[in-house]
Amino acid sequence: MTKTNPGRFFEDYTIGEIIPHAVPRTVSGGERALYHALYPARHALHSSDEFARASGLEASPMDDLVAFHIVFGKSVPDISLNAIANLGYAEGRWYLPVWPGDTIRSESEVIGLKENSNGQSGVLYVRTRGINQNDEIVMDFVRWVMVRKRDAANPAPETVVPDLAASVAPDRLVVPSGLDFSGYDFTLAGEPYRLGDYKIGEIIDHVDGLTVEEAEHMMATRLWQNTAKVHFDVTARPDGKRLIYGGHIISIARTLSFNGLANAQMMVALNAGAHANPCFSGDTVRAWSEVLDLAETPAPGVGAIRLRTVAHKGEAGDHRLKGEGGKYLPHVLLDLDYWALIPA
Amino acid sequence: MTKTNPGRFFEDYTIGEIIPHAVPRTVSGGERALYHALYPARHALHSSDEFARASGLEASPMDDLVAFHIVFGKSVPDISLNAIANLGYAEGRWYLPVWPGDTIRSESEVIGLKENSNGQSGVLYVRTRGINQNDEIVMDFVRWVMVRKRDAANPAPETVVPDLAASVAPDRLVVPSGLDFSGYDFTLAGEPYRLGDYKIGEIIDHVDGLTVEEAEHMMATRLWQNTAKVHFDVTARPDGKRLIYGGHIISIARTLSFNGLANAQMMVALNAGAHANPCFSGDTVRAWSEVLDLAETPAPGVGAIRLRTVAHKGEAGDHRLKGEGGKYLPHVLLDLDYWALIPA
Amino acid sequence: MTKTNPGRFFEDYTIGEIIPHAVPRTVSGGERALYHALYPARHALHSSDEFARASGLEASPMDDLVAFHIVFGKSVPDISLNAIANLGYAEGRWYLPVWPGDTIRSESEVIGLKENSNGQSGVLYVRTRGINQNDEIVMDFVRWVMVRKRDAANPAPETVVPDLAASVAPDRLVVPSGLDFSGYDFTLAGEPYRLGDYKIGEIIDHVDGLTVEEAEHMMATRLWQNTAKVHFDVTARPDGKRLIYGGHIISIARTLSFNGLANAQMMVALNAGAHANPCFSGDTVRAWSEVLDLAETPAPGVGAIRLRTVAHKGEAGDHRLKGEGGKYLPHVLLDLDYWALIPA
Repeated sequence: MTKTNPGRFFEDYTIGEIIPHAVPRTVSGGERALYHALYPARHALHSSDEFARASGLEASPMDDLVAFHIVFGKSVPDISLNAIANLGYAEGRWYLPVWPGDTIRSESEVIGLKENSNGQSGVLYVRTRGINQNDEIVMDFVRWVMVRKRDAANPAPETVVPDLAASVAPDRLVVPSGLDFSGYDFTLAGEPYRLGDYKIGEIIDHVDGLTVEEAEHMMATRLWQNTAKVHFDVTARPDGKRLIYGGHIISIARTLSFNGLANAQMMVALNAGAHANPCFSGDTVRAWSEVLDLAETPAPGVGAIRLRTVAHKGEAGDHRLKGEGGKYLPHVLLDLDYWALIPA
Repeated sequence: MTKTNPGRFFEDYTIGEIIPHAVPRTVSGGERALYHALYPARHALHSSDEFARASGLEASPMDDLVAFHIVFGKSVPDISLNAIANLGYAEGRWYLPVWPGDTIRSESEVIGLKENSNGQSGVLYVRTRGINQNDEIVMDFVRWVMVRKRDAANPAPETVVPDLAASVAPDRLVVPSGLDFSGYDFTLAGEPYRLGDYKIGEIIDHVDGLTVEEAEHMMATRLWQNTAKVHFDVTARPDGKRLIYGGHIISIARTLSFNGLANAQMMVALNAGAHANPCFSGDTVRAWSEVLDLAETPAPGVGAIRLRTVAHKGEAGDHRLKGEGGKYLPHVLLDLDYWALIPA
Repeated sequence: MTKTNPGRFFEDYTIGEIIPHAVPRTVSGGERALYHALYPARHALHSSDEFARASGLEASPMDDLVAFHIVFGKSVPDISLNAIANLGYAEGRWYLPVWPGDTIRSESEVIGLKENSNGQSGVLYVRTRGINQNDEIVMDFVRWVMVRKRDAANPAPETVVPDLAASVAPDRLVVPSGLDFSGYDFTLAGEPYRLGDYKIGEIIDHVDGLTVEEAEHMMATRLWQNTAKVHFDVTARPDGKRLIYGGHIISIARTLSFNGLANAQMMVALNAGAHANPCFSGDTVRAWSEVLDLAETPAPGVGAIRLRTVAHKGEAGDHRLKGEGGKYLPHVLLDLDYWALIPA
């Protein structure tokens, strides 16, 4: 009998089951520094303790995507080791900042199962939660993945498809306790634009490009303890390429978006996301964002902006997203829909 | 007169001499984060302060191999700058964990000298110790290297070959003070297997592969302040390749071994080790382990497992080690023999 | 109207103007560990808290060039996004160490403007300052860059060329408070040479070479939040190469200089610097230094050594600098003139 983890197959999941994921992780200034080395991260609230204190927080919290990556990475051995595709995200929310010194573990609840008509695979829906050392939920999100069946002859489970919100409603956004942008320093933050300066439908081209390297995406993916073989092993795919972890593209897109969205400081909800096409070392990634919605929050001076941020290869200024038949065009890498907090 | 360090030659060593190595090093969460970025490190005790506390420790100690790499790296300028080959390790033990904030220096005692019959070089045996800011020995190990003579005409020293243990006896293993696995959380650790689940002679294939990159091995090797030219300078070898530091392969093998040995949490002894063949950027490294011995310790719930962990290139599941004549096969990179602590 | 930063043009600067730069940065042990991973940094004062304490400091400060890179990086979006060339440095001084936990911001004062005769561009002189969370200046330096004009038809500003010192006078060097080398441990530091062992005009070949990789220079440059496109985006230059940030070469040269200048522990002044030729991934960088001056300081046991450190590609031992007509030879990458503190 093998002692190594073969991963779960579609038959191994039961509606309502809660799967605790292994290997809790304590974070420090080391993870923050690496995040700044791996990505062009410049949002001031995640760069400076002083800026964070002037915004009502105790210190600079870890980048919101650090929490996401850690929570996601832990779920890989139990959820997506035998996944064929990562299909989508919904209802993601950040509840509490993660601070240096915090220890994060994660667990997933099975909330949906739908076998595919070919009987070879099925779609698994899970709500994955990150939990800190005080047993507080720091974030959660729903994702659904297509998972192989161990044996096509096994019977299909009862179909349960969860009813997921198209986006998180503004009144369900959680603003970190104490956050106050009423004395916000736009000069130190890098741009003068507040909530009222953005219009729904406005498109911002983030201009900068980033050519990605194997060493970078592998270091990032290992840092979050994501074990999916395709990211590390050139023999894992027939084309001999290492597939870049989709979350690496999320962080590249989000950090490139500083240029034009420097004040969209904290991510508070993940409404939807599609990894439209694979990315490989040598690709040059660019990003643009569309303003989808604007909202107020009860916190002093704090507004919320809903953004579609798209990462793509190729020319800057190319804002095409889908082609005939509604399929993503081949140069599109990521289509991400999220809420961020911004001075009102 | 040159002020740069030309390294020592075989004639420059005297039995009994203690060589203090330069450049003490203070470690922090930064080194820990980098270790997790450079290697697929997932052992829970080295990942989570909470897990470490539940195991009776104050906090999560640095990975045991961080201590090894730092102690080893400091010895390079004095021991192996003119080495032809790193021949072996023996009698390595970890005595005290290294914690963030600790400062480590190292020193080597010359314990053996044997000139080669060709008169061009000789074998140097040293016992190298890592010492913390409280003058406590945190680990030591014996290694022997083949070192060039400055001048073949120089007389040979008296031959002294130390009597080295084939392996560290189980009753000589040092369990960190306070370690207690009686309440061990196998779910958080990632696998259900305890000491009694392993059998002597059992082989565990760790499945995952890691394709290595130049930037990664150079960053790792610099982090441990190892200065050997062949790792960094493409002009240092006739083939224009950068030789990967053998310790990088040790860390890759050890971290890949999580898959099947997730509960072999702490290394406590290094019995033997051979860098069987060189590794270069682009190679895909895999690992398998053989259980060599099992033992109890006086600490509550803590057992010890003696493992041979082999790193190799090529197919998973290839457990051949040596060919005709007892020579390592060309795909074998590392043959490491060590004790680790595991829930009893 | 675009919300992204197009950078300033030559017309956008006014003599006397103070430009506060965005995105303050808090540093930790993470930045220190990354500095040691990215460069072969071995100066003991920046490696060991214990060594620093034995030298009269509270703890090991961040490498002096970490401060430089952070201060420089913040200035890029306001000063050199549209620069054609980084022409020189002068009058740089370090006033206070940067410690883990410090938050650094930066600002630049415009001190010179001189339009080029072609009317297409001009030379901008700024004094850039790094400021910590206590509003203390931690370092400053003058640099001058050639910047494009937005429109050649725009009138030239009044020419102001600052009167810059050829080098910082020894009596203007600032020794960190408490620094005391009277009990200096040369063994732990790695070399036996003190101030009196160096002679003006002496040349030290630092021997070691470092072959540079894309992932390394991009991680370094991002870590300092330097946003210049040419470092990250293969489409930004016609040759499809990523230009390596000049500061990366400064750090490589300085850290390679350990071999022969291990006791030149702290940089205290930057007298001059030229990025003589571009460096690209795959180049092997070497360094040599010339002793330009020697001085005493009022601090116990602390002397100062003025060095020219040259980074170059190609053979070790090639100390040629300029060719016919006084132009730097093509293999020269960097010509740096600075003061460092060394045991007297």
